[in-house]
Amino acid sequence: MNKKGLLIVISGPSGAGKGTVYNEVLIRRPEIKRSVSVTTRAPRKGEVDGIHYYFRTVEEYQRMIANGEFLETASVYSNYYGTPKAPVYEKLALGQDVMFEIDTLGAKQIKTIYPESVTIFIIPPSFEILEKRLRARGTDSEDSIRRRLSCARSELAKYKQFDYIVFNDDLESSIQRVLSIIDAEKSRIFRNEKAIKDYLNS
Amino acid sequence: MNKKGLLIVISGPSGAGKGTVYNEVLIRRPEIKRSVSVTTRAPRKGEVDGIHYYFRTVEEYQRMIANGEFLETASVYSNYYGTPKAPVYEKLALGQDVMFEIDTLGAKQIKTIYPESVTIFIIPPSFEILEKRLRARGTDSEDSIRRRLSCARSELAKYKQFDYIVFNDDLESSIQRVLSIIDAEKSRIFRNEKAIKDYLNS
Repeated sequence: MNKKGLLIVISGPSGAGKGTVYNEVLIRRPEIKRSVSVTTRAPRKGEVDGIHYYFRTVEEYQRMIANGEFLETASVYSNYYGTPKAPVYEKLALGQDVMFEIDTLGAKQIKTIYPESVTIFIIPPSFEILEKRLRARGTDSEDSIRRRLSCARSELAKYKQFDYIVFNDDLESSIQRVLSIIDAEKSRIFRNEKAIKDYLNS
Repeated sequence: MNKKGLLIVISGPSGAGKGTVYNEVLIRRPEIKRSVSVTTRAPRKGEVDGIHYYFRTVEEYQRMIANGEFLETASVYSNYYGTPKAPVYEKLALGQDVMFEIDTLGAKQIKTIYPESVTIFIIPPSFEILEKRLRARGTDSEDSIRRRLSCARSELAKYKQFDYIVFNDDLESSIQRVLSIIDAEKSRIFRNEKAIKDYLNS
């Protein structure tokens, strides 16, 4: 049948719980591949090239940008981070699904470059609960909490760029919803054109 | 939140097993409403007006057509059958989901009149298996089987009008896939615009 895999993007504001949803979905669907990023920062102890990151020099990274080799790229604290197209496209061509956890800017870049991607926006059930969650962490200063909350508001306003939205009020329901979205997308007509044509010619 | 219900359409060629999938989905999700058709044929023993059908005269039916009161209408053996908009729209406005089992012509009419509907095409796993299934029924003549098979081929060619396709090779997987599609559709961005705006204004 040679059906292409799905490129799934999980995004959302800080504190929405998108990382937990992402990890849980990967546990339940171990056949879904994680994407591996390229970075210019130095490897930390135990990090292996090609598994945790592809470690590259700034010159190599900039050459990759110039060659249009990225699905998305960003710089954080003077280091580059990005997702190279080639390994992702190879997996998709083999029929493997690939999933990303990424911020709204990265999600937008991916959707632009690869419009068939399935983009899911995970949001906290309300601003009140988001504030409670950030405080419960106990790791952020009052100032940082204020900044994160105002940042969440402007992040949330970007909802229109996404295909799906999941209100994360209950972790298990959110995981199930993401799994349903992945399954449903596999039945979308435009993803089955080839299979249907083969079928009609049989 | 006042979120609109989903209008779900299950369609497919004869012998695809769409009726079984439809009934099983309704058993697992008893909150989903069946649609009730209007007909001009005489009530059979035990049939109750407003439950099995809305029974109407030919004159009443034609007036309803003229007034644009149908989501879809067809005539079969000189009787009319159709789905009136009003009771369906009332349920959707209350946030109730409504599901239809209907042929490809009816499905197309509904999608045209109500583009937000979710249309799912259930097809047999192959023509070979469809033929086996029709023969196993033991109710059709050789001639009728030939006619049904050639009809299935032209029905299948209409796949592009649908949102989703489900290859019904395993009943339980097909039911689960339809349930996933229903759940996923509830998270589509355009169905949540109002909820998100309320959220952002909170």
